[in-house]
Amino acid sequence: MIPKSQESSQLDAQGNLKHFLTIEGLSRELLVEILDKAEGFVGVARQAVKKVPLCRGKVIANLFFETSTRTRTTFELAAKRLSADVLNLNISTSATAKGETLLDTLRNLEAMHVDMFVVRHASSGTAHFMARHANPHVSIVNAGDGRHSHPTQAMLDMFTIRRHKGDFSSLSVAIVGDIMHSRVARSQMLALKTLGVPDVRIIAPRTLMPARIEEAFGVRVYHDLTEGIRDADVVIMLRIQRERMNSALLPSEHEYFHLYGLTEARLTAARPDVTVMHPGPINRGIEMDSQVADGERSVILEQVSNGIAVRMAVMSMCIGTQNLRAQSIGESHA
Amino acid sequence: MIPKSQESSQLDAQGNLKHFLTIEGLSRELLVEILDKAEGFVGVARQAVKKVPLCRGKVIANLFFETSTRTRTTFELAAKRLSADVLNLNISTSATAKGETLLDTLRNLEAMHVDMFVVRHASSGTAHFMARHANPHVSIVNAGDGRHSHPTQAMLDMFTIRRHKGDFSSLSVAIVGDIMHSRVARSQMLALKTLGVPDVRIIAPRTLMPARIEEAFGVRVYHDLTEGIRDADVVIMLRIQRERMNSALLPSEHEYFHLYGLTEARLTAARPDVTVMHPGPINRGIEMDSQVADGERSVILEQVSNGIAVRMAVMSMCIGTQNLRAQSIGESHA
Amino acid sequence: MIPKSQESSQLDAQGNLKHFLTIEGLSRELLVEILDKAEGFVGVARQAVKKVPLCRGKVIANLFFETSTRTRTTFELAAKRLSADVLNLNISTSATAKGETLLDTLRNLEAMHVDMFVVRHASSGTAHFMARHANPHVSIVNAGDGRHSHPTQAMLDMFTIRRHKGDFSSLSVAIVGDIMHSRVARSQMLALKTLGVPDVRIIAPRTLMPARIEEAFGVRVYHDLTEGIRDADVVIMLRIQRERMNSALLPSEHEYFHLYGLTEARLTAARPDVTVMHPGPINRGIEMDSQVADGERSVILEQVSNGIAVRMAVMSMCIGTQNLRAQSIGESHA
Repeated sequence: MIPKSQESSQLDAQGNLKHFLTIEGLSRELLVEILDKAEGFVGVARQAVKKVPLCRGKVIANLFFETSTRTRTTFELAAKRLSADVLNLNISTSATAKGETLLDTLRNLEAMHVDMFVVRHASSGTAHFMARHANPHVSIVNAGDGRHSHPTQAMLDMFTIRRHKGDFSSLSVAIVGDIMHSRVARSQMLALKTLGVPDVRIIAPRTLMPARIEEAFGVRVYHDLTEGIRDADVVIMLRIQRERMNSALLPSEHEYFHLYGLTEARLTAARPDVTVMHPGPINRGIEMDSQVADGERSVILEQVSNGIAVRMAVMSMCIGTQNLRAQSIGESHA
Repeated sequence: MIPKSQESSQLDAQGNLKHFLTIEGLSRELLVEILDKAEGFVGVARQAVKKVPLCRGKVIANLFFETSTRTRTTFELAAKRLSADVLNLNISTSATAKGETLLDTLRNLEAMHVDMFVVRHASSGTAHFMARHANPHVSIVNAGDGRHSHPTQAMLDMFTIRRHKGDFSSLSVAIVGDIMHSRVARSQMLALKTLGVPDVRIIAPRTLMPARIEEAFGVRVYHDLTEGIRDADVVIMLRIQRERMNSALLPSEHEYFHLYGLTEARLTAARPDVTVMHPGPINRGIEMDSQVADGERSVILEQVSNGIAVRMAVMSMCIGTQNLRAQSIGESHA
Repeated sequence: MIPKSQESSQLDAQGNLKHFLTIEGLSRELLVEILDKAEGFVGVARQAVKKVPLCRGKVIANLFFETSTRTRTTFELAAKRLSADVLNLNISTSATAKGETLLDTLRNLEAMHVDMFVVRHASSGTAHFMARHANPHVSIVNAGDGRHSHPTQAMLDMFTIRRHKGDFSSLSVAIVGDIMHSRVARSQMLALKTLGVPDVRIIAPRTLMPARIEEAFGVRVYHDLTEGIRDADVVIMLRIQRERMNSALLPSEHEYFHLYGLTEARLTAARPDVTVMHPGPINRGIEMDSQVADGERSVILEQVSNGIAVRMAVMSMCIGTQNLRAQSIGESHA
């Protein structure tokens, strides 16, 4: 969807993270560096004063063209724990209403010396577009673009898997749900394969399964839930967009739960120590029942906590690269 | 409305304030402790740097399911003066729209390591429900639940009365208006009685007076304004919800003002040094005329100022109890 | 529009800035002081930690009755760079909906010890009204009132002109567009004349040109764009409110651009080193084409950056005057 040549534009010449747009094109080493860095930030949430001064005096703008309390809030908290100043901009209701283009919005906020933009947009490629046009002193973090990518969600999921399973190299991970429309699934598949997970399985009704996905991502395709999660170490349930229910792509909620909803009974097919994940918010009784959602094997709330540490890692790495650039410019001028 | 056994759940085993949900069940000593603590915070607003570091690094989330600029703003300012980080979450328009339950919202924000929730909700019992399900490290402050309780409003009113009258033990206090639907009146009656006010009077049209309120709260009931405020030391006017005007419970605005609106002429029935209060925002010409609202005996704006000091007191007491808990857990692990 | 006697109410007895309401009545010395002060703040945006502690512990409330992401954001960033706490109040949707008057809103926020109000309102004179009724410890900054005044916009434009042209005393400045409805134009004309610009030209269709403007402001009137910008040093394009297009005051967008839109071809009439300005957001293809907007002579994004420095200057000057007042009160009490 996004041209190949642009994928690597998130790294600077030294291979450091400048933007965080997609998992595509990132090395295993870099993904592990993000996970390790996030590990160091987990403790900050338990401190009496939940703050580190890494981004003090920096301005981070949340540009959410699609509303999302959960994702915006975790980015806001991550930024505040890094001691940054946060601007929440609900663009849909103001500037765009006056007819301003996305590029004008970017240029104007750059002119206000905003250091980082966290962007969510319904159109695939928005974060890439902004990174391509951003001034060198600005970083873009993709918080979800259309059906394309949601890389911080994927990384917090990887972080959660590593905390529970230790090692990626012998895992079976199943992803269940609306693969077709899911930017989360796309980013998860890329991250799992990059980190060396040998067995990634995709489970969806035929109407929600993209064509040729096996070759594209090196995954295995299933249409039956019990078969797909057999002996899996990790089962990731995707959120169903209820608005698709009436679109002929999906059966009724009842029917969907009957075929693809996770229950304790069904979960017996997976390994006894299976880890159950969901990006939230859950539709209880559609993707899974409450017994599973609130059960011992569910790590759904841990995913939320881990999201802050992972976002702190990504944001501080991008800002750190900015500082390096600023120093080297300073030195070459000296 | 809220079962008795839950009322005391706002205190920890040592009797310290863990949550602040209702006046019910709180001792006179604890209410006086809140008032004394608030006294210490009044000076902060007059400092050049209006801040104390008591809650530095803590995250306080405003969860307002009903909008209220005034109450939300005073809580936000109180939190910022305590050096906390504040999250403003307008839940109605986001998470709930995606079908998330209240409990899921609570769990998710807890997972983000929010330390305190300030909650306003149209349903009675919401704050209690959240406190009952909250993790031990989290405090809930009730900013108004349905017709049930608005305890910080009652405490700021008590604070204002004490500042003007010195002592509660010989006062006559009249509360005028829509007692039936008022969480403010309910919390005020409880606080006044707990603090030892001997004469609490309730004045309302028959359609807005709850049954058996005399026995329930130990108050005296009046239907005539002049009679009710005779020789009163304090007159508290309640806000009329204009939307009730067309509901057959209330006469027209004109008629209401004619019967229950406070004027200088009417106020002569009260003591010459009577104090006039209102929780705001005032409907001028309905609950009272502007001469009274802006007159010498009105302390309505002082109530607003005092609201910040009282909220700082309640918030810092709850957070202090959290810190004690964290320390004792630390010690028992050491 | 605003009575003469009130214009000077923005200065205290010593001639210091207490409020910032309008350019009218301000001396050349004071305008230059603002520009010089802003010059000192330009560097703050380039520091690693973009903060100075001048307003630490102060509370600045953004009271926007008209929404404006750009202006509100630059005021918010200016306040945060001065280390103030910022309250964003969207008044239209809350307090006023409950029937509260503007004066009650002011009184209530004053009671919360807010130190400064940044006010935007559709009615001319709102900021003056608030300043007239504000308590002595509070400052009002006008962020745009009706068709009357937008003084911080004018000052950031003056700042931008001085940075590019050095000196005001021999400049030709042309202002193009809907002069009739523009608070920006009104403030710009006053500022340019006060700062000694000898040749200020106003270019507009007859339907959008106020009567007797030549005498009132000492400007020259043109109805032809090319003629009006001939040999100009600076051309300021005003934003067209698209909603006026259908009101018979304006021709179609196409027709407007044909007659008054700035193009590279047209710009050849001005001086070769002409500076092109616009308060933003631009309607590309109406006020100017993209070649001009993004061209070498456009300083539109610099205006945005300069807006923060100029707002920091105005805000810190008003707060500084407050501090002086507080000290002298303290001394007289000692």
